[in-house]
Amino acid sequence: MPLITSPSNEKVKRVRALLEQRKARRTYRQMVLESPRLIDEALRFSQHHPDYRLAFAFYANPTPRARETLDRLQAAGVPCYEVTPAILELCTEAETPQGIIAVAPIPELPWPEPSTFLILLDRVQEPGNVGAVLRSAAAAGAEGAIIPPGTADPWHPKAVRAAAGAHFVLPVRIASWAEIPSLLGSTTVWLATPGGEHVYFEVNWREPVTLILGGEASGPGPEAQRLPHRAVRIPMARGMESLNVAVAGALLLYEVARQRGWMK
Amino acid sequence: MPLITSPSNEKVKRVRALLEQRKARRTYRQMVLESPRLIDEALRFSQHHPDYRLAFAFYANPTPRARETLDRLQAAGVPCYEVTPAILELCTEAETPQGIIAVAPIPELPWPEPSTFLILLDRVQEPGNVGAVLRSAAAAGAEGAIIPPGTADPWHPKAVRAAAGAHFVLPVRIASWAEIPSLLGSTTVWLATPGGEHVYFEVNWREPVTLILGGEASGPGPEAQRLPHRAVRIPMARGMESLNVAVAGALLLYEVARQRGWMK
Repeated sequence: MPLITSPSNEKVKRVRALLEQRKARRTYRQMVLESPRLIDEALRFSQHHPDYRLAFAFYANPTPRARETLDRLQAAGVPCYEVTPAILELCTEAETPQGIIAVAPIPELPWPEPSTFLILLDRVQEPGNVGAVLRSAAAAGAEGAIIPPGTADPWHPKAVRAAAGAHFVLPVRIASWAEIPSLLGSTTVWLATPGGEHVYFEVNWREPVTLILGGEASGPGPEAQRLPHRAVRIPMARGMESLNVAVAGALLLYEVARQRGWMK
Repeated sequence: MPLITSPSNEKVKRVRALLEQRKARRTYRQMVLESPRLIDEALRFSQHHPDYRLAFAFYANPTPRARETLDRLQAAGVPCYEVTPAILELCTEAETPQGIIAVAPIPELPWPEPSTFLILLDRVQEPGNVGAVLRSAAAAGAEGAIIPPGTADPWHPKAVRAAAGAHFVLPVRIASWAEIPSLLGSTTVWLATPGGEHVYFEVNWREPVTLILGGEASGPGPEAQRLPHRAVRIPMARGMESLNVAVAGALLLYEVARQRGWMK
């Protein structure tokens, strides 16, 4: 296929739109994958879910690791276009680009019913933090993640990078506060907050739960507070006042997993 | 005091050097604080440790929150210089600057002897990750943090921002591998690694320990591997292959704290 050199090429414009605009990600139901590892995950996913075939890939001076991924994409029949380095640079925001990016459909995994272990990210405004929590949630065996209004887009390129493949194994739903109760099912809602009554490792996490994590600056908002809930806190030594939201999320998620004895 | 307008002002040059050069931070034993909260912490610290008086502050269009800090600095007799917005921009790398920065001495807190709970960050190259682990270590009640060669400077501006004040409560030592054994004292060394023999919540953490965390890309290096050690892992569900280093560190640190029953 001919080398792509023009920023006004339709596919280049698509990638730019997907990187920059939440609306474009919604309209096309696609995301940009900016590392060979993530592209490999998407390819593996598509092999089990034929509706999720990758749309296309761009490459320019691929690293040896990116070349392996490129070979796999070509073997799978995914259209791979060579582009100029300047075009590839336009098409990635990764700090250490490896010479390949791909566009893939956003996975829509079935929502767990009944749910026993969910997470809701309320007012988490930094997409990197959203991705980091999704990564920990998948690793801790959570069954689903809920994203209400006011939280960063979980398919923002920074969130996709930070999630390290969680998007392919953890159902993620963007939902309004009106839709949320039906996603919660019969789980008990626990709000993580510095003044929470219960210390997280003294709670019995064996019953079905939804953990609500608030943004680092503001904590959970009024809609979350209005849900019937209990409040949990993470104790802190030495006068420290708060933890990074990804860290707080991981501590709670893994305490649930530890108590349930799921993992060895 | 007169408005500072010139990038060649000596204090402006000092701030730039401290932001950019590890060597300058070593030579002057100073760091840059880029938020009102961190400056407040440094001021509180200096009130208990008279040798750690803040050197000076710069401000330009301070937010109301920054104005409070400025008032406190002036009341404490710290030289505060108004600068032009362009100069302040030169003097901060924070994403949401609040109109004030300060230069403060790097705290050198006494090393715990005997130690019962240390952390060593091996080959953690991203300063934000170093700071995030220091923050969790302080909150979990760790007694000291060791930084060997190959790990990012713990007083890099990104590390200082991410640590959220941990530098004022947790002793941090930069040390060569030759110096490290004496800092470890009689603690048992545990290396966190994906193939570790022991699952982290099945280890008895009540004995004196040093946790060694490796960089996300490379894991602990050969010098760390050469220390007499045991190896611990964090189990992961759903085929996830790794966790963010700050998240992995927090899980281990808080498991130690949980088992020791320190915090309520």
